[in-house]
Amino acid sequence: MGTRLGKQTIRLDQKPVIQAWASIAGAKEGQGPLARYFDDIVEDEYFGERSFEKAESKFIRETFAKIMMKGKVSPEDIQYIFGGDLLNQCIAVSYGIRETEIPFYGLYGACSTMAESMSLGSMMIEGGFAERVLCITSSHFCSAEKQFRFPLEFGSQRPPTSQWTVTGSGGVLLGKTGDGPRIIHITTGKIVDMGISDANDMGSAMAPAACDTITAHFTETALPQNHYDLIVTGDLGHHGKNLCAQLLEENGINVQEIYDDCGVMIFDREKQQTDCGGSGCACSAVVLGGYLLDKISKKELTRILFVSTGALHSPTSILQGESIPAIAHAVGIEMF
Amino acid sequence: MGTRLGKQTIRLDQKPVIQAWASIAGAKEGQGPLARYFDDIVEDEYFGERSFEKAESKFIRETFAKIMMKGKVSPEDIQYIFGGDLLNQCIAVSYGIRETEIPFYGLYGACSTMAESMSLGSMMIEGGFAERVLCITSSHFCSAEKQFRFPLEFGSQRPPTSQWTVTGSGGVLLGKTGDGPRIIHITTGKIVDMGISDANDMGSAMAPAACDTITAHFTETALPQNHYDLIVTGDLGHHGKNLCAQLLEENGINVQEIYDDCGVMIFDREKQQTDCGGSGCACSAVVLGGYLLDKISKKELTRILFVSTGALHSPTSILQGESIPAIAHAVGIEMF
Repeated sequence: MGTRLGKQTIRLDQKPVIQAWASIAGAKEGQGPLARYFDDIVEDEYFGERSFEKAESKFIRETFAKIMMKGKVSPEDIQYIFGGDLLNQCIAVSYGIRETEIPFYGLYGACSTMAESMSLGSMMIEGGFAERVLCITSSHFCSAEKQFRFPLEFGSQRPPTSQWTVTGSGGVLLGKTGDGPRIIHITTGKIVDMGISDANDMGSAMAPAACDTITAHFTETALPQNHYDLIVTGDLGHHGKNLCAQLLEENGINVQEIYDDCGVMIFDREKQQTDCGGSGCACSAVVLGGYLLDKISKKELTRILFVSTGALHSPTSILQGESIPAIAHAVGIEMF
Repeated sequence: MGTRLGKQTIRLDQKPVIQAWASIAGAKEGQGPLARYFDDIVEDEYFGERSFEKAESKFIRETFAKIMMKGKVSPEDIQYIFGGDLLNQCIAVSYGIRETEIPFYGLYGACSTMAESMSLGSMMIEGGFAERVLCITSSHFCSAEKQFRFPLEFGSQRPPTSQWTVTGSGGVLLGKTGDGPRIIHITTGKIVDMGISDANDMGSAMAPAACDTITAHFTETALPQNHYDLIVTGDLGHHGKNLCAQLLEENGINVQEIYDDCGVMIFDREKQQTDCGGSGCACSAVVLGGYLLDKISKKELTRILFVSTGALHSPTSILQGESIPAIAHAVGIEMF
């Protein structure tokens, strides 16, 4: 049943296990510093399909298949899929999993989707509603540019605060039993909107939400600030990461030495010309399903706080002069 | 913890209570047969705002406030909001609830969102994770036409199978205790895609998903076919409702006399020129938060199976020649 520790945090007493995980990334991610941790790197941005959207669905489909294989399970062993993506009407995941015949809950948490799906999935297991739940998300540089900014052919200039949407898909299989990393705490985000309205500076829009959730996590759990080996936000990028660290310090949380951001980790900023770093639902998902869970399962990391961050605006809301509401969901993962 | 009855169905042994509910509808809905059941009818399609999208967020905000008032609760009493809508990136709900400071899980289930949010919300309560959860959704004829079809100014012709997106918002407050209607069963949908690719014939695309979920519900619960006073789908419309009834009959489920559809119920087809009937997330939401829960709380209905139906395509997927994946989630509501 879990134990409620405060307004936003639940401690999971059954400690759901991350039984399997996978990540498939695109070509640019495959040239970055985390390349060797991905299960597959796909050089073709179309992934053999006829559109970027279909390619993104294929990333989901292949990641799903990879998790089945690595977890040695079949679709009948899984009670629910929780998934979502950035595309309008979340078509990447809907088309990506439509043949699985697994009961499905579609999510929209923008780039917070990976932690959102794991929060809900782990409560399903903790609550006794499922033996196994699959959590999955994706993003694609080309489909995201086309939908949120300009078609690539337009060749628009990128401001220095802009980020590079990660191409790929990551997912995890959660279950009741096993030896894998376990989910111990979840801290659910609330919407934080500090009035930022520049859609080319998502890091600044999302940093206050990340700070809010991390602060709530430490306040409600009463864990010491050095409890984790790593606190990792989803896709704040270089600028947003610095801002988040500063905001945390203002809240009395001094975790600079153990704090990083998946958007910072995934690209080599200078060599890869990715401006402020990676973004997109897949950013935190492939870093988790690639690098982080590899390190945790080998006990090179033993406790991490995984905080996916999402900006809940749309191109329409920005054109109408609205600011960007943001949200961050945190999942505390530990290895025993 | 609930009891798993089969692949898709959970029986909720704690029987979460629908403590309060509300519905606010637009002008056209306010001229229909269910008008007197809505809490408010808003004549102005802009709801005093400067865009249809902002108006839709205001429907959410006002419905939220109405539920607080009717349930005699304040935001601090609510542990989670589950919500979503049809707009790209679900901005209606994100902007609509951004001031509430309540932990939020964003959903995308297209027009199945009302039952999706109630399924997850009731498991949160059954699992002991929350005392109270708010479930909410919206849609708006003008924002939906603009986004999914053509701007209204274009004056496009409507084919006879087309449906009329309901303007409004509906929501429910679920809790552990109280005298209200209770959620006894949830049957979670899986994606069903029968190859329909006509986005002007959503009823046909969604009917097989509704049939699949209703069939699973009766098979897994082993309830007699006359257990419910009413089985009500979300927004299949006239054509889809007939198709669903026919498909159910082929599966040996003969419920014609107790079967209806919110899209059929909400408009007077002949007087209101709404073609095949209502659609949109708000269709099942305002019929539930208006008519249905009124009837149940007065024991004029005692057991209903509420089945919201969603089409998980996007305008882009249709232009790329894809068919329409559909899903239906069922919630069994009973009054003691």
